[in-house]
Amino acid sequence: MPQGTPLQVPDDGLSTRARRNRPVLAVHTGDGKGKSTAAFGMALRAWNVGLSVAVFQFVKSAKWKVGEEAAFTRLGRLHDEHGVGGPVEWHKMGAGWSWSRKSGSEDDHAAVAAEGWAEISRRLTEQRHDFYVLDEFTYPLKWGWVDVDEVVGALLARPGHQHVVITGRAAPARLIEVADLVTEMVKVKHPMDAGRKGQRGIEW
Amino acid sequence: MPQGTPLQVPDDGLSTRARRNRPVLAVHTGDGKGKSTAAFGMALRAWNVGLSVAVFQFVKSAKWKVGEEAAFTRLGRLHDEHGVGGPVEWHKMGAGWSWSRKSGSEDDHAAVAAEGWAEISRRLTEQRHDFYVLDEFTYPLKWGWVDVDEVVGALLARPGHQHVVITGRAAPARLIEVADLVTEMVKVKHPMDAGRKGQRGIEW
Repeated sequence: MPQGTPLQVPDDGLSTRARRNRPVLAVHTGDGKGKSTAAFGMALRAWNVGLSVAVFQFVKSAKWKVGEEAAFTRLGRLHDEHGVGGPVEWHKMGAGWSWSRKSGSEDDHAAVAAEGWAEISRRLTEQRHDFYVLDEFTYPLKWGWVDVDEVVGALLARPGHQHVVITGRAAPARLIEVADLVTEMVKVKHPMDAGRKGQRGIEW
Repeated sequence: MPQGTPLQVPDDGLSTRARRNRPVLAVHTGDGKGKSTAAFGMALRAWNVGLSVAVFQFVKSAKWKVGEEAAFTRLGRLHDEHGVGGPVEWHKMGAGWSWSRKSGSEDDHAAVAAEGWAEISRRLTEQRHDFYVLDEFTYPLKWGWVDVDEVVGALLARPGHQHVVITGRAAPARLIEVADLVTEMVKVKHPMDAGRKGQRGIEW
């Protein structure tokens, strides 16, 4: 098959150009490594062509991607100071979560996650960014902190040309159903199995 | 299981610290998306802590990751001009392949791939870089252009603290056997299935 030739052309009344330019909803799921890392690799590519990138981390502090955050903060600064690439925003749930000061009990976590999603939903409506990473967002969905149907509805209804990448294990079936691109990262082998712990610059 | 606790501690006479600091050999394989993207995400993290990053692309021009190359060239310039992050080198097989001018027939491709691997092997011996991405390197292995056993031997014998990430479908069993971290990217759903072509900033 030649490079770039679709397997089938759908009967959706769209030209190839219109279809190509539809925004992408991608899901990286599975128990293997690389779900978030590949999302950040996509964000790097988006940044490179000048798209406005926003990362929302739905994780606890121990799992925060500090290396990626530092790298993307630098990329954002490149944009702000030198007009290179696109602007970058990075939001964490918890202490660093911009629109909430709650923390502590599980109820609070649930409330913070719900608030976080409400903010993302608002931004989608306002077309605030071009490329969203909702990192580890499957967990609040799984735990019922955020309603899957509401998320699916908001994603399907998002106006304009906003790309969204969602990462995390056990992505809900409803989400996979409406996504354009779904990859399952399967663990074949992991250093932790051999008693090795993570190291700076590699694991975080 | 608490964060960062290994499943088992191996009887290899190494302290946790020594074991943690062993260099990583990672393989991203499978027919799904995200193999290279996750490798570049890891490279971004490595760059961020100041590691010297080198990317070697074993692909034909149509599949070159131009977006990633542009982004990493910018990151390398940040290092060179402002001392931020690590240095970056990016080498492509073919016209841009630094140490060869050959191109054309399949024999030439095979020779160029073999030369490319020979150069990487020399660099590993010299400990030239800290973090290597051998992008789509499984193909020359699969096609017999580069000998798998020789590669495995060189990787196992590499001195110092050099991390290597190899991407591509159908990674050889021998390679998987000696790798520390292997993830299979499984395609669940892809926009090409629905007749959509790639778009700039998302696919490249």
